[in-house]
Amino acid sequence: MKHRSSPEERYAEVIRRQREISLLESCEELLSWDEDTFMPRAGVANRGDQQALLAGIRHGRATDPELGELLLSLEGDAARDPEAALSVNVRELRRRHDRLARIPLALFQEMARTVAFAEEEWGIAFRDDDFPRFEPWLEKIVRLKREEARAIGFAGEAYDALLDEYEPGATSAELDALFAELRPELGALLARLGRSRRRPKRALLARDFPVDRQKIFGEAIATALGFDFHAGRLDVTIHPFFSKIGRGDCRIATLYAADSFGKGLFAIIHEVGHALYEQGLDPVHDGTPLGEAASLGLHESQARLWENLVARSRPFWSHFFPLAREIFHGSLRGVNLDDFHLALSAAGPTLIRAQADQVTYNLHILVRFEIERALIAGSLEARDVPAAWNEAYRKHLGIAPATDREGCLQDGHWGAGMFGYFPVYTLGDVWGAQLFAKASKDLPALEEDIGKGSFGGLLGWLRDNVHRHGSRWPAAKIVERATGKPPGIRPLMEHLGKRYGELYGV
Amino acid sequence: MKHRSSPEERYAEVIRRQREISLLESCEELLSWDEDTFMPRAGVANRGDQQALLAGIRHGRATDPELGELLLSLEGDAARDPEAALSVNVRELRRRHDRLARIPLALFQEMARTVAFAEEEWGIAFRDDDFPRFEPWLEKIVRLKREEARAIGFAGEAYDALLDEYEPGATSAELDALFAELRPELGALLARLGRSRRRPKRALLARDFPVDRQKIFGEAIATALGFDFHAGRLDVTIHPFFSKIGRGDCRIATLYAADSFGKGLFAIIHEVGHALYEQGLDPVHDGTPLGEAASLGLHESQARLWENLVARSRPFWSHFFPLAREIFHGSLRGVNLDDFHLALSAAGPTLIRAQADQVTYNLHILVRFEIERALIAGSLEARDVPAAWNEAYRKHLGIAPATDREGCLQDGHWGAGMFGYFPVYTLGDVWGAQLFAKASKDLPALEEDIGKGSFGGLLGWLRDNVHRHGSRWPAAKIVERATGKPPGIRPLMEHLGKRYGELYGV
Repeated sequence: MKHRSSPEERYAEVIRRQREISLLESCEELLSWDEDTFMPRAGVANRGDQQALLAGIRHGRATDPELGELLLSLEGDAARDPEAALSVNVRELRRRHDRLARIPLALFQEMARTVAFAEEEWGIAFRDDDFPRFEPWLEKIVRLKREEARAIGFAGEAYDALLDEYEPGATSAELDALFAELRPELGALLARLGRSRRRPKRALLARDFPVDRQKIFGEAIATALGFDFHAGRLDVTIHPFFSKIGRGDCRIATLYAADSFGKGLFAIIHEVGHALYEQGLDPVHDGTPLGEAASLGLHESQARLWENLVARSRPFWSHFFPLAREIFHGSLRGVNLDDFHLALSAAGPTLIRAQADQVTYNLHILVRFEIERALIAGSLEARDVPAAWNEAYRKHLGIAPATDREGCLQDGHWGAGMFGYFPVYTLGDVWGAQLFAKASKDLPALEEDIGKGSFGGLLGWLRDNVHRHGSRWPAAKIVERATGKPPGIRPLMEHLGKRYGELYGV
Repeated sequence: MKHRSSPEERYAEVIRRQREISLLESCEELLSWDEDTFMPRAGVANRGDQQALLAGIRHGRATDPELGELLLSLEGDAARDPEAALSVNVRELRRRHDRLARIPLALFQEMARTVAFAEEEWGIAFRDDDFPRFEPWLEKIVRLKREEARAIGFAGEAYDALLDEYEPGATSAELDALFAELRPELGALLARLGRSRRRPKRALLARDFPVDRQKIFGEAIATALGFDFHAGRLDVTIHPFFSKIGRGDCRIATLYAADSFGKGLFAIIHEVGHALYEQGLDPVHDGTPLGEAASLGLHESQARLWENLVARSRPFWSHFFPLAREIFHGSLRGVNLDDFHLALSAAGPTLIRAQADQVTYNLHILVRFEIERALIAGSLEARDVPAAWNEAYRKHLGIAPATDREGCLQDGHWGAGMFGYFPVYTLGDVWGAQLFAKASKDLPALEEDIGKGSFGGLLGWLRDNVHRHGSRWPAAKIVERATGKPPGIRPLMEHLGKRYGELYGV
């Protein structure tokens, strides 16, 4: 330290260290990707050891007091021009450093190791509809997450400390307000759609769609949207996900079902949305906050935007339906575009979040938000999750699953140690709709382009207004700067009202 | 250190550190496996950064002077009972520590990074038969390897320092003697076979063998041999390999050709041989030398034993030929077992090492040994490799390739930074034959068992006599203890004389 007298040298040292921390994280990401795709089951204990070791090395480097001092010595400079690269990186690294430094090394490593096992166990429990198998792992993860939240500290409730990992600064109280605003509007829209005489023919999409054909179709659409297969992969897993292994290496994974047109496909498009965000970040700042996504909420805004605003739209299918008919020939015989599009958009209570329609989707999120919040608060225990889940589904969606596989086991997040993630889907929905509305204004030919299978204009707009800024501003501010308005639910509700109103003719 | 007064505590600390070093290496192994199987091409620069970072961290830990002091403090105890676990581990870790400590960190990291690129470039150059594309990478690796050899130091020639990485203690001079002994005997055997009137019908094995059927057949045989797919994988790559990711996770990869019965299959069996060795090591000593293979020569002895002694034998095919006919139905129509087995064993000069018959195989190795030795000595440069290769093939096999793809580009070893590896195939051949001869004596029913597709007896013998000893003794001593004789070429030559004599009726 003594020898690094100039701020430039000290900043360069910070960046050098941060890039190594980021690389370590990318090694952990590969270990995790491999576990979720190809790792043989008997390798899980070794994987846990590997994850714990790398997590421990990363913890040591990211919380190194020398790094803290380097940051401290730069904070004066950073204050002068808060939007400069140095300022953004110093600010964000300070936030991460302080957060991680509060989590004890042993707890951090224990979490990394536990997650390696819990992900496997969740997968088996899901496959076999066997909640008791997953329960001890869920219990352990909840216990560790409670500890983690206490270690980090919080102003409101413990859950906020976890939420902050995915959406810096977000609070349960703000989310309460958001859901309080959304819920009645979504209910009213559902009621309005219920008055329609149009009945979506859901069975059209449950015909036989051979998985090898789905793969071809999915790859064609991913490519058309701008996903670069030379810099990425598409694999099969139990629970669809996106994984950035590093620059030039963005991987997505989906799960096909031979009796579902949409299950594998919309997961692909969703994950492509994540990948396009990562591929649009500034490579100059790779491995530093300025070259990283601003938040997971903003990440989901991109995923949900491509999945829903783009790929569930009428123009999108006016372009791709003929290709679908060709690729799946017999399976779509006698189906017309109107029926097809209405079937794709059938709204109403269902059991599976990942396949829910756009209107009910955030009610599925609300269920999870309530349950994980109660788990972290200590007012709910792992063993009581199935009952609480079913009760919450009855309350918010009016139906309840007959099995845990269609209930509390359906999502892999908790087994992956992700508590506080679910609400960012809703933030993403809200922000994505607001961004898309502004893009539609700025790009008068947007609908027409989508109808031609041309997405470069939209992608360029998102790159200019969202992606390239990395973490320069907090996510909500990026949305505000891009759209000229603070984030709010109006654009989402307007979009849903218009799209579903037209589809249902009400 | 001051606080660890007892040898037990100090040894426990050595083992703790060694297990972390081994885990780091296993993370590097996954990065490498991923690059060779699934990594998108644009990810190569990131992969180089990841490899360099982990290699650097491992270098730091493995050469930590504190570890050196801990080892020093235990060497007195170790001397008392050289076969005790502590003694074996301390001795072997001392050897590794001293070797690695001589390689500068920067050179070690540069090699790790360079290999990440060179493996990719080799793959492209091989595919496109484009040696000039690979040449600068080969040149760079040779330069780094020369530096590495100088840094390590050597008594005889520089190449020995590299050989030592794969076969501790082996020297060029010993290998010269081995090849001087082998070459005339192999030549004499070839001449003898040349006097036979039997003509192998090689074309039988170049019919249409659909790759998906090959995969099924290969998996069936791998399973029969004892490979556990719950603790391993079989994938497709450009150059077949075995990779131990960690306990419970042994992966093999092959390359199928639709016009070759044997190319994909014998690579699978070879790699299964490697995997069975790893799976037979003592799990109690996992991550320490006592739980690791004694040398790569001994590793190859297992691979070559299963590939050749077992899976090219008559009893093996008397059992599996009916299954092959069933799985490949039309393709093996009208073929009888005699013709099939002779075709599988056709001896004579060919261009591709990995598909060479057992008699000429070690001449292919000799070519590589001469060339890589000259490269390290500085008497040959990368740009001159194609000419030198072709000349050496003319000299040792009497034929020369028309393309570099069938010539000096055919193997991936040099692109993977492996100089000094090739000769261990020959050591493996020699040792494997000697081990198999002894197993055949100890297990009177061995041939009969193989003819029933039953391999448990042989595997058990190898586990008892080879695998479970890990690195307790040097490889040659393990062979000597298992067979009661110092290693020599007689068992190999007797095996070849008998098998090929019978096949060719001479």
